[in-house]
Amino acid sequence: MMMLEVVFTISIFVLTSSAEKLSIDGQRVVDQLTKLATFSDHQNPAVTRILFTPNDMMARSYVKELMTSAGLTIREDAMGNIFGRFEGSDATLGSVLTGSHCDAIPLAGMYDGTLGVIGAIEALAALKKAGYKPRRALEVMMFTSEEPTRFALSCVGSRAMSGALTSEYLSSKLDENGTSFLEAANAVGYGSSTYHQLLQDALVPKGKIDYFVELHIEQGPELEKESKDIGVVTAIAAPAALKVEFHGDGGHAGAQLMPLRNDAGLAGAELALAVERHTLATGSVDSVGTTGVFEIKPGAVNSVPREARLGIDIRDIDGVRRDKTVESVRASAKEIAERRNVRHTVTLVNQDPPAICNSDIQTAVAEAAKELGLSTKSMVSRAYHDSLFMARIAPTGMIFIPCKNGYSHRPDEFSSVKDIQQGVHVLALTMAALSGGSWPQDKSEL
Amino acid sequence: MMMLEVVFTISIFVLTSSAEKLSIDGQRVVDQLTKLATFSDHQNPAVTRILFTPNDMMARSYVKELMTSAGLTIREDAMGNIFGRFEGSDATLGSVLTGSHCDAIPLAGMYDGTLGVIGAIEALAALKKAGYKPRRALEVMMFTSEEPTRFALSCVGSRAMSGALTSEYLSSKLDENGTSFLEAANAVGYGSSTYHQLLQDALVPKGKIDYFVELHIEQGPELEKESKDIGVVTAIAAPAALKVEFHGDGGHAGAQLMPLRNDAGLAGAELALAVERHTLATGSVDSVGTTGVFEIKPGAVNSVPREARLGIDIRDIDGVRRDKTVESVRASAKEIAERRNVRHTVTLVNQDPPAICNSDIQTAVAEAAKELGLSTKSMVSRAYHDSLFMARIAPTGMIFIPCKNGYSHRPDEFSSVKDIQQGVHVLALTMAALSGGSWPQDKSEL
Repeated sequence: MMMLEVVFTISIFVLTSSAEKLSIDGQRVVDQLTKLATFSDHQNPAVTRILFTPNDMMARSYVKELMTSAGLTIREDAMGNIFGRFEGSDATLGSVLTGSHCDAIPLAGMYDGTLGVIGAIEALAALKKAGYKPRRALEVMMFTSEEPTRFALSCVGSRAMSGALTSEYLSSKLDENGTSFLEAANAVGYGSSTYHQLLQDALVPKGKIDYFVELHIEQGPELEKESKDIGVVTAIAAPAALKVEFHGDGGHAGAQLMPLRNDAGLAGAELALAVERHTLATGSVDSVGTTGVFEIKPGAVNSVPREARLGIDIRDIDGVRRDKTVESVRASAKEIAERRNVRHTVTLVNQDPPAICNSDIQTAVAEAAKELGLSTKSMVSRAYHDSLFMARIAPTGMIFIPCKNGYSHRPDEFSSVKDIQQGVHVLALTMAALSGGSWPQDKSEL
Repeated sequence: MMMLEVVFTISIFVLTSSAEKLSIDGQRVVDQLTKLATFSDHQNPAVTRILFTPNDMMARSYVKELMTSAGLTIREDAMGNIFGRFEGSDATLGSVLTGSHCDAIPLAGMYDGTLGVIGAIEALAALKKAGYKPRRALEVMMFTSEEPTRFALSCVGSRAMSGALTSEYLSSKLDENGTSFLEAANAVGYGSSTYHQLLQDALVPKGKIDYFVELHIEQGPELEKESKDIGVVTAIAAPAALKVEFHGDGGHAGAQLMPLRNDAGLAGAELALAVERHTLATGSVDSVGTTGVFEIKPGAVNSVPREARLGIDIRDIDGVRRDKTVESVRASAKEIAERRNVRHTVTLVNQDPPAICNSDIQTAVAEAAKELGLSTKSMVSRAYHDSLFMARIAPTGMIFIPCKNGYSHRPDEFSSVKDIQQGVHVLALTMAALSGGSWPQDKSEL
């Protein structure tokens, strides 16, 4: 009887201890994020940091310094993904990996992506400092690039790691100066002699990663609105993007009579409204559709448009429903082109399946939050992240923290020190739980 | 009886003689147009010649040389309009003025506007050479600038001459380098110390011009399609242009749910389709409406458009009907903005009345064509010209010749030597008829 009690007491103590023994310094994380933000092409508060540019290389050096200070073993692959490892006791098991990105679209904020790298390094550093001993190794990574700014390809690091990128496709991507990814990577000390080797070096062998967790700002207003501390992400919406072009003959706006026209701009206008109509027709609030790019030529007020280029973004939690919307949009493009007597092309840029977040990870996140007395909300990630691709090769989950007004991709993006500290703390506890390791015993209580 | 016969014979002879005595060299006109085309910012066949730039100044020197060789007295006003005059016998009457422009939008052809200057100089030279004695003075002019390329203001010379331009408005027009019209004019030897003086100098006093006639390529396909030699223009369509802006809040294409959106791009798409709808609703083929400019921001595929800028062109032969269409478009912009919860602005860039061509001029053109055995077609000018503004201050008419496929504002714009010669000949006879002067008698026939 007494033994049971003792065991019970020790267990409770150990549980409470694990939370207490972890010392997370939220202000330090914010200071580090602020320093990282200074490596920017635009003046702060705006942050612009593009793959393999000088500011990106400065940021990488800084990240590696922080990893080293945290006592992590550094490794980089040929794509430029950077890993910091805290070795575990059981080398037969895959690691618990956490990470995000540090590159930033033009005129962005300082939290998007960076929180999941800098905060994650702090999480591992805190676990190490607390004497936690991992069973599965713990790793934090910085994906080489998540934003599509330079090569019009998002999540290039995680696509490569998950085998979702072919040499053929990657080699077709040139930046605005005509430089290829391979050239750009080699120029800064990464890279390889061929695309095949580049991708092989990044590809994650089976069994190497047992869990992937990403800490990120919500980029939406729900947690703040509902005063919830932590978002337990249940799924990541499936993104798709299309390029549609319409071509007509153009003409003089004064001289070309209406019956003789085949106005490519009007065809584009009809399609943009069709995208909205098909999206709303699913009846689900999880369906979103956007014509984010709309360009016409020649673009002179006295000239009937002879060319229209549309960039269309369609997402949904339900992959099948998302694909139906894509097909409806394609069908509309065809019908409009025929009716308006214009030529048209439809190019699928990407059409990725949704990711369902692993329930063990969701449970670990929820329990970590509970330990810390934090409120949670189960929610969908409508923006996609490297997690979308990591989910193809490992059980994946995401942790959200609130951001002010839900603003992101803008200089006034903001999360508080308190929310950041709480997010990092939940991440650390989650990783510890998934690692299956052990906390140091406090002998004074026995 | 015999006397009647003699008179009859002489009259017929004189009539035929006037046509025969006029020696028009179409090839010479084409050679001069070809030489003029070499004063171009882009390589021929493309012609680019922008107001007050070096190539424009070279062109002006060439035009003045031709005027001088034709025996005309040269005058220039402060705006840069250039006149060549063939004095008449009756100084109490206004002149018969003909003219067009030599400036060219980027990558244009070599006939648009220039025909009406170079060909007109040839017409006056031929009349002089034939011994014709004007009663009303004959003048040929080159308007300083018809194209809106530099200052976003078309027909600036004819607007000034007809009093359709205020100092206030002209002073607001800056080129892409921030240079004002006044500065630019002074820099090349035109200009004045104030806008007021500039415009006063160009303004045509009452009674100075009795008729204005413009020779121009059709810029449409009808004459060629119907195998007609000469277009007798009955009216010039009334142009109007509007700028409409829609402003929403934008958002992340993945994260912003559809019910929360106020997509400025979709508001723009609806308005572009409304322009078409209102235009077709007049039921008249003479109504045309075009959304030639359509730009959205930020213009990234994963970003809900937060700004849309439209440039709308609305024209009609009937000014009242045109104005109704403009009002319908304004009303649609307001309704769309309210329904889609976006802010909007509507700016009227210009709204000019149509010009009805003077019947005496139309008759003179038709008779000149008949004399020469040429076929004619009465037709509307759907593009507008300096004639639109000259019609405010003088009885005005236009003469069209065919151009290949109706192409204009492109390097492959083309009219044949034959068509050019015929057009110049008709212009010369028309001006002679309107001048009311006299041909030399051929004494050998008496």
